[in-house]
Amino acid sequence: MTKKGFALLLGIVAALLVTNAHAQVAPAIPDDSVFVFNTLLFLVSGMVVMFMAAGFCMLEAGLVRAKNAATICLKNIALYSVAGLMVYLVGYNLIYGVAEGGIIGKFGPWGADDSDPIGTGYAAGADWYFQMVFVATAASIVSGTLAERIRLWPFLIFVAFLTGFIYPIQAGWVWGGGWLDARFDDFAGSTLVHSTGGWAALAGAIVLGPRAGKYMHGRVTPIPGSSLPLATLGAFILWLGWFGFNGGSQLALGAISDAISVSKIVVNTNMAACGGVIAALALTQILYKKADLTIILNGAIGGLVSITAEPLQPAVYQAILIGAVGGVIVTLAVPLLDKLKIDDVVGAIPAHLFCGVWATLIVPMSNHEVTFFGQLTGVLAIGAFVFGVSLLLWLALKYSIGIRASEEDERVGLDKAELGLEAYPEFAST
Amino acid sequence: MTKKGFALLLGIVAALLVTNAHAQVAPAIPDDSVFVFNTLLFLVSGMVVMFMAAGFCMLEAGLVRAKNAATICLKNIALYSVAGLMVYLVGYNLIYGVAEGGIIGKFGPWGADDSDPIGTGYAAGADWYFQMVFVATAASIVSGTLAERIRLWPFLIFVAFLTGFIYPIQAGWVWGGGWLDARFDDFAGSTLVHSTGGWAALAGAIVLGPRAGKYMHGRVTPIPGSSLPLATLGAFILWLGWFGFNGGSQLALGAISDAISVSKIVVNTNMAACGGVIAALALTQILYKKADLTIILNGAIGGLVSITAEPLQPAVYQAILIGAVGGVIVTLAVPLLDKLKIDDVVGAIPAHLFCGVWATLIVPMSNHEVTFFGQLTGVLAIGAFVFGVSLLLWLALKYSIGIRASEEDERVGLDKAELGLEAYPEFAST
Amino acid sequence: MTKKGFALLLGIVAALLVTNAHAQVAPAIPDDSVFVFNTLLFLVSGMVVMFMAAGFCMLEAGLVRAKNAATICLKNIALYSVAGLMVYLVGYNLIYGVAEGGIIGKFGPWGADDSDPIGTGYAAGADWYFQMVFVATAASIVSGTLAERIRLWPFLIFVAFLTGFIYPIQAGWVWGGGWLDARFDDFAGSTLVHSTGGWAALAGAIVLGPRAGKYMHGRVTPIPGSSLPLATLGAFILWLGWFGFNGGSQLALGAISDAISVSKIVVNTNMAACGGVIAALALTQILYKKADLTIILNGAIGGLVSITAEPLQPAVYQAILIGAVGGVIVTLAVPLLDKLKIDDVVGAIPAHLFCGVWATLIVPMSNHEVTFFGQLTGVLAIGAFVFGVSLLLWLALKYSIGIRASEEDERVGLDKAELGLEAYPEFAST
Repeated sequence: MTKKGFALLLGIVAALLVTNAHAQVAPAIPDDSVFVFNTLLFLVSGMVVMFMAAGFCMLEAGLVRAKNAATICLKNIALYSVAGLMVYLVGYNLIYGVAEGGIIGKFGPWGADDSDPIGTGYAAGADWYFQMVFVATAASIVSGTLAERIRLWPFLIFVAFLTGFIYPIQAGWVWGGGWLDARFDDFAGSTLVHSTGGWAALAGAIVLGPRAGKYMHGRVTPIPGSSLPLATLGAFILWLGWFGFNGGSQLALGAISDAISVSKIVVNTNMAACGGVIAALALTQILYKKADLTIILNGAIGGLVSITAEPLQPAVYQAILIGAVGGVIVTLAVPLLDKLKIDDVVGAIPAHLFCGVWATLIVPMSNHEVTFFGQLTGVLAIGAFVFGVSLLLWLALKYSIGIRASEEDERVGLDKAELGLEAYPEFAST
Repeated sequence: MTKKGFALLLGIVAALLVTNAHAQVAPAIPDDSVFVFNTLLFLVSGMVVMFMAAGFCMLEAGLVRAKNAATICLKNIALYSVAGLMVYLVGYNLIYGVAEGGIIGKFGPWGADDSDPIGTGYAAGADWYFQMVFVATAASIVSGTLAERIRLWPFLIFVAFLTGFIYPIQAGWVWGGGWLDARFDDFAGSTLVHSTGGWAALAGAIVLGPRAGKYMHGRVTPIPGSSLPLATLGAFILWLGWFGFNGGSQLALGAISDAISVSKIVVNTNMAACGGVIAALALTQILYKKADLTIILNGAIGGLVSITAEPLQPAVYQAILIGAVGGVIVTLAVPLLDKLKIDDVVGAIPAHLFCGVWATLIVPMSNHEVTFFGQLTGVLAIGAFVFGVSLLLWLALKYSIGIRASEEDERVGLDKAELGLEAYPEFAST
Repeated sequence: MTKKGFALLLGIVAALLVTNAHAQVAPAIPDDSVFVFNTLLFLVSGMVVMFMAAGFCMLEAGLVRAKNAATICLKNIALYSVAGLMVYLVGYNLIYGVAEGGIIGKFGPWGADDSDPIGTGYAAGADWYFQMVFVATAASIVSGTLAERIRLWPFLIFVAFLTGFIYPIQAGWVWGGGWLDARFDDFAGSTLVHSTGGWAALAGAIVLGPRAGKYMHGRVTPIPGSSLPLATLGAFILWLGWFGFNGGSQLALGAISDAISVSKIVVNTNMAACGGVIAALALTQILYKKADLTIILNGAIGGLVSITAEPLQPAVYQAILIGAVGGVIVTLAVPLLDKLKIDDVVGAIPAHLFCGVWATLIVPMSNHEVTFFGQLTGVLAIGAFVFGVSLLLWLALKYSIGIRASEEDERVGLDKAELGLEAYPEFAST
């Protein structure tokens, strides 16, 4: 090769190197933008999921009697605060500090080393926030089932254990990369969040017993809620929050493929809720000759829970059907629980536990990398753990400090008894 | 040219080619980021527009009597679900499947081919979601006008036709690129969404007739709403949602110019609502010597509708004035409708239909590419189509299954009659 | 050097120049994306801060008696509208038109020159919107304290001055780069927004006097709110909005470092509120043997205000403690105000003014670039200015058009007296 030729070659090589360097430093979306997009997804999603705390609060305040409405509001704002504290103090590291295939994470507060590793692709704080609001959701489920008769402080003690230990340990099994992760799939938490809340609520309902007058002389006495408009508002807020709950669980927004996935998730989430509403509407009309608003609101929630284990893979028509089955489950399970004399004030056990199980088991239909047996393993393992530990904890609370309001307190209402005030001092006819 | 010179030239050309290649693959905002930004705009906007369903629900629940509050809540959550289903099954393709200059799109469910073409610049699901929540908005308008006397199931059947066919066909004329598109401009849907809802509501109100006792012995009897705080909450939620309604209608956030446009739209939207509130506040004070909260809430909505046909071009002071005229229209039109004995329970016809017409006709003031005659054509064509078809549909429903609750049912309230429950069992004095 | 060598060198230089050019035009995040990210932060944050207007409205509607609930709703939607108008007409330029180190900005409407300078790194409209909703927040604080006895129009006149002049002038001292800026730090407005609202409310409460019957025969008569569920909803909405209030005050989202900062701010904001709730819950239980929901809701707000002056620097445990002290302040200050016979209907002065002072003075603990003396200077200067001018304005209004409803109007309620309607015509027992 002549030197001229060599000079030419070197020039071209240099140019190609530049091209190559350019390809490395300027990909389709710069890494830094990916970081911001991912973080933004966590923050925006986290905000609407946080707002679900208000949704649960309104749903529950609307479905209890006026004499217990202030107490349920207090429980809801307090449980969110306790959840925040416990997830910070111990919960987060119990979820994410678990070794690969392990069974329990690390104890200790989050972020003690104050690091914010950029390599993860998102801000550590945004991720923490997104996880924290998920944990609070599970606790919100419990407050609804046990309303109108559980005392404030034992409830909050349970919430501290639930949000600090019970939820984080089982979440670590899957989302933390623990022993269940390889064989079990739960995209946004039908089992990890909703069934967990539901199992804890069921254990509590059994230990606590039904409200006075609910099951008398072999009959079920309906106890209507005090404000169905507030309950409806709550359901709408939950629906809104679920776009963040499921959409944010894509955990990334830094690529076209992520944006498409989040969008599909949002559509499926929306349509599963629509399916749940319409199924509950039609079924209550057929069964009872009346459209039952309370059940229909739970139909929306049941539809949302039903799509939460796998909101990405189903086709839209599948999402509608999955949600519709959720609506049917809710409609049929409410009288079933009554037969068992399990008093679930707001219908949270059907919507969150039963639909959570359904959601988890139907995943293999649309996601062929998941097996029915693996899903069943997860449902049973997490169910046994959460229900078992919750039952022991409720029993321990019952036989130590007591969990149930006195008959007299229940009669006058927890608002007067425990808070010394009334939710609606000028309205209630009592 | 010597070979040395040639080598030099080639090196420079290679370098320039690299520069050029670089300019092509790394524009100001990478194409992939544009895609994510656009999609994010649809998703965030869609979420707050979805929440408008809760806003309409609260507004209407607050403005009906307690005995009909649960029913209106049920109608609102059901209509959103029906809208979701119908837009999926047929509506979306009726809007966007129209040929250029055509009059009707394609029949069939959305996304049957499951494609997500990246070339559009946004995720198909996000776009679908954004369109779907718009359609639901139109249906929400109808529920308010016809509250307290229409039966549940005929209402839902109408909603299915409205959201599946009536809205999509006329929207296809403009947003789908149909015959009206070249001569008519409606940025975010003053005519396509709000007047459409208003025309459908007007047709229904005429066929259905007023509530019992509203117009007796030649006098108008005011029927106060049961909870003005809930109505106010609804108006605030609508105001919030409108930032997404109008801002998201920019349909892009992938360039500085888009970010500036969305911001201008948000400011104008906000200020038009402020103008509507202040105009209605001042005018009711002058006319009635009392500030009328219900009219003022509708003043906000009227202001918002008034800016929706063109939220981008007006200067801020123009936006305030356009919104203020909307507030005046609402204030003056409410008694006008009463004179015509058209019973519009929540005042939706003035706010959405009348202000929608005003909004559309004033566009040429700030957008000089638009003609008054073109705008008038659109208003008349869409008005004739929507009102005409709605009227026929309401009449068909009336003379087949019937649309109106019985006198007795209306007297005891639809909650007891159709749902078998009460919205506020402990409060209402009946 | 041979010509061959020169050709080679030139090729390499050309290639290096390209590399350099590339480094200039394609930084980690392209400038245009930075612009969109920043603008998006303002818009999303602004939307939830706007929604705080609904939060204040619900909080106040829930804490007043039913006979004044519609009036407080009207005041809240009207004050937001007046704030929008005034910030447009004069306020924005009073804040940002101040010369470096100066004391007052420019008079005149915003954006008269219609420019949107791209060099700022965000859309001018988005920034204006974000500032406007902050100003409205300060006015919302005043409405709560003075509820149930102030007449509508004098209140709105005060709001016009507060949002057009009082707030903007002092905000210009700091955020506009005025004389206080160099020595005083207030990240998101504990002093500039919350204390400002609190000082204006305090001045008004003194001039206006307590509600009839509140302080009689040397005793404090509690006047319970009409709907604690609505008040709780309000607190949740405020909590949600605060993520935008503090997070958006980072003013940038165009770099990894910004995304990390916004995330930290969101976490600290959340945890300060949790701390405030738990502190108020524990303290009311200890002091009164009853958990007091109203105080706990204010504990959340007090916690939020307490972190607002510096939400970025504190470690999470510090944020919890700072918020917890806010909860303690609220709990202890409510009876203190009663001793002084200052009737603050919703407890806004403790939550916004006292916690605002605490928040501002504790900044040096975590932010070592800030001095206690500088912070004290700002608290005193802004306090003296806002309280002084507000006092004069309230006195001027009192002795000109009058500010207080007549005894008879107060007795029957402002809803009937000023609005000619009732918030809950079917419920209220009166």
